[in-house]
Amino acid sequence: MAIHQFSFPTRIHFGPGAVGLLPTVLAEASCSRPLVVTDRGLASRPEAISTKERLAAGGLDAAVFAGVFGNPVKSQVIAGVEAFRQHRADSIVGLGGGAALDVAKAIALLVHHPGDLFDYEDGKPDARPIDREIPFWVSVPTTAGTGSEVGRSTVIADDATHVKKILFSPRLLAQRVLIDPELTLSLPAPVTAATGMDALTHLVEAYLARDFHPLCDGIALEGLRMVARSLPAAVAYARRIDAGERAIFDDPDHVDARGAMLVAAMMGGVAFQKGLGVTHSLAHALSTVCDLHHGLANGIVIPYAMRFNLDAVPERLGALAAAAGVPGGAPGFITWLESLRAEIGIPNTLAEVGVRPDHVDALVRVAVADGCHASNPRNVTEADFRALFHAALGAP
Amino acid sequence: MAIHQFSFPTRIHFGPGAVGLLPTVLAEASCSRPLVVTDRGLASRPEAISTKERLAAGGLDAAVFAGVFGNPVKSQVIAGVEAFRQHRADSIVGLGGGAALDVAKAIALLVHHPGDLFDYEDGKPDARPIDREIPFWVSVPTTAGTGSEVGRSTVIADDATHVKKILFSPRLLAQRVLIDPELTLSLPAPVTAATGMDALTHLVEAYLARDFHPLCDGIALEGLRMVARSLPAAVAYARRIDAGERAIFDDPDHVDARGAMLVAAMMGGVAFQKGLGVTHSLAHALSTVCDLHHGLANGIVIPYAMRFNLDAVPERLGALAAAAGVPGGAPGFITWLESLRAEIGIPNTLAEVGVRPDHVDALVRVAVADGCHASNPRNVTEADFRALFHAALGAP
Repeated sequence: MAIHQFSFPTRIHFGPGAVGLLPTVLAEASCSRPLVVTDRGLASRPEAISTKERLAAGGLDAAVFAGVFGNPVKSQVIAGVEAFRQHRADSIVGLGGGAALDVAKAIALLVHHPGDLFDYEDGKPDARPIDREIPFWVSVPTTAGTGSEVGRSTVIADDATHVKKILFSPRLLAQRVLIDPELTLSLPAPVTAATGMDALTHLVEAYLARDFHPLCDGIALEGLRMVARSLPAAVAYARRIDAGERAIFDDPDHVDARGAMLVAAMMGGVAFQKGLGVTHSLAHALSTVCDLHHGLANGIVIPYAMRFNLDAVPERLGALAAAAGVPGGAPGFITWLESLRAEIGIPNTLAEVGVRPDHVDALVRVAVADGCHASNPRNVTEADFRALFHAALGAP
Repeated sequence: MAIHQFSFPTRIHFGPGAVGLLPTVLAEASCSRPLVVTDRGLASRPEAISTKERLAAGGLDAAVFAGVFGNPVKSQVIAGVEAFRQHRADSIVGLGGGAALDVAKAIALLVHHPGDLFDYEDGKPDARPIDREIPFWVSVPTTAGTGSEVGRSTVIADDATHVKKILFSPRLLAQRVLIDPELTLSLPAPVTAATGMDALTHLVEAYLARDFHPLCDGIALEGLRMVARSLPAAVAYARRIDAGERAIFDDPDHVDARGAMLVAAMMGGVAFQKGLGVTHSLAHALSTVCDLHHGLANGIVIPYAMRFNLDAVPERLGALAAAAGVPGGAPGFITWLESLRAEIGIPNTLAEVGVRPDHVDALVRVAVADGCHASNPRNVTEADFRALFHAALGAP
């Protein structure tokens, strides 16, 4: 039995209207000039505009940096640091999905750390230490998926090569997290489904990951319970609103389902400090090679990946079935994943989203090199990855 | 739906030999002169002696303050602060059960905070703020019960009046926690059983407490799973060792059971930041009025308390049954508590430990005034407390 280490994150405020705490939270930290870092697409939406108004009403002088789009690249971070300096900002509010929160973290890092962003790459032999001051920063997620709001790493790609670099330090953790279901009420059904499957995959893979971490195990099972109850409801509401039923927008059951998904996604982000698994290595390859949305990729491949894990961890898959409230133990859990996927509109096969057999060689190369499958409960060989990609492509 | 707040503690190292990390942990924090705060009874035992030797071997100049005994009182804290100053200490190692860890926390508080310890009492209208430096301190539990090693409060009594005062601040949390099952291998069976029931009660009451806190809920259920698997085994090993079977001392299954109980107790300490319930109010009264051991009191009364809660939260009690791996839903959970209590040698009634009907008036007064039942899932009136104490006394 080895010596294990457990760490847990930060102060989190959850509930409808939690984003209204922003002025108080910043004032308590003696901050008056926040830089709001957000997605290009989000900047013109009510969430971002009302956030800026809230800050102004709280007597704060906020500037907005809305230069985040697509998969984050280094030039976005550099532009954000420039915006921070121009505004003479003293704090950062990350408002958005995983990309905006990752860029916010990287800006926070680079404000007081000299040199190039990638000098701080995690695991690089001559990496500079992340040991200087990080400006006070608050994360405000607007999707229920990545769990990035409670994460201690950020993934930023090189502009030219598109190679992703991981920057990691407990110091990158947001000092406060505001989780507000009202910010996710307008997410369209396909985004709700894909980000929800990302949260689900974090919870499932964290629970199955090899390390001993019962705190994360308990959080993962409870988070899965919440996903099982709330993801179908959240998608159903999103579909009705997408179809024009605006009257149900603020329905308390809609707010509850969105809130539960946000909390479950946050719990996924907490739980996966334990580790992830083969599903994520498959999904990372699909994003890199075929530019597939990460949550969508997870959602398509997770039943194939769990069938691969079935004989290795039948008891643990059975506990996941129990948490999801479905009968039939481990096989029942996989059947449930398939029916959930169908119910919320995630395709059954990779072929349906344009992945082709001639992609498989490149996919396997990236998946094998990916770090996530190291903690998968069953070893994954190159041949296993090939078989998994072919299975997930679907019948020819 | 209100706005909820979640916070989580600190870095924890767990495993056999984890206490061996002490020199490294202190050196990493640039500390070289720790004060080891421990129980009077523990100071002469191998755990404490080897800890001091370990620190010396690591090049650290450690002093030992072994002035903790019984329920901690303020004069112990003042003597500990004096020991800290005399040694010119730069850090604290709390080594022991809940009492030693609570005194260690209070010493850490008083080293840089002026005035009287009780000036900082939680909730006192004119309380001084806990806002100054706290010396680096490491907690090392030697029982699997209170969860004090991950707690942010300390309970210290007035020497004269024996009135207990609570001091609370997130700043009181140990910077590091070393959880080492080797330190609990020699705990006698009755202590193993009583402290184990304390851990179990934290987990159960935290899960049932009224607040919305799914992180704590998940941790509580997973911790209960570990208690259900490991407490009977830990007590069975302790009995055989108490009876002279020294050969099984280091048996890997013994170490595993002790480790699981320590982790479950820590998880109880994390989970009960959510709240506790009626069992704890009964137990606090029994400690104050009849000087009963806190874990023993919890262990005796918890089935009566859960029967009281049965109609209020049948689903939640059913989830606890499922986590404990027992059939029969909520009633099955209460039956399991009764059989567990019998199996590990906890009495069925308060009469068996010397509580008398003429204690009840005083018991009810203290229980009603206790804060824990505020978060119980069913309101508890004075008449309810009276009925509960009479039921737990047993047939006349």
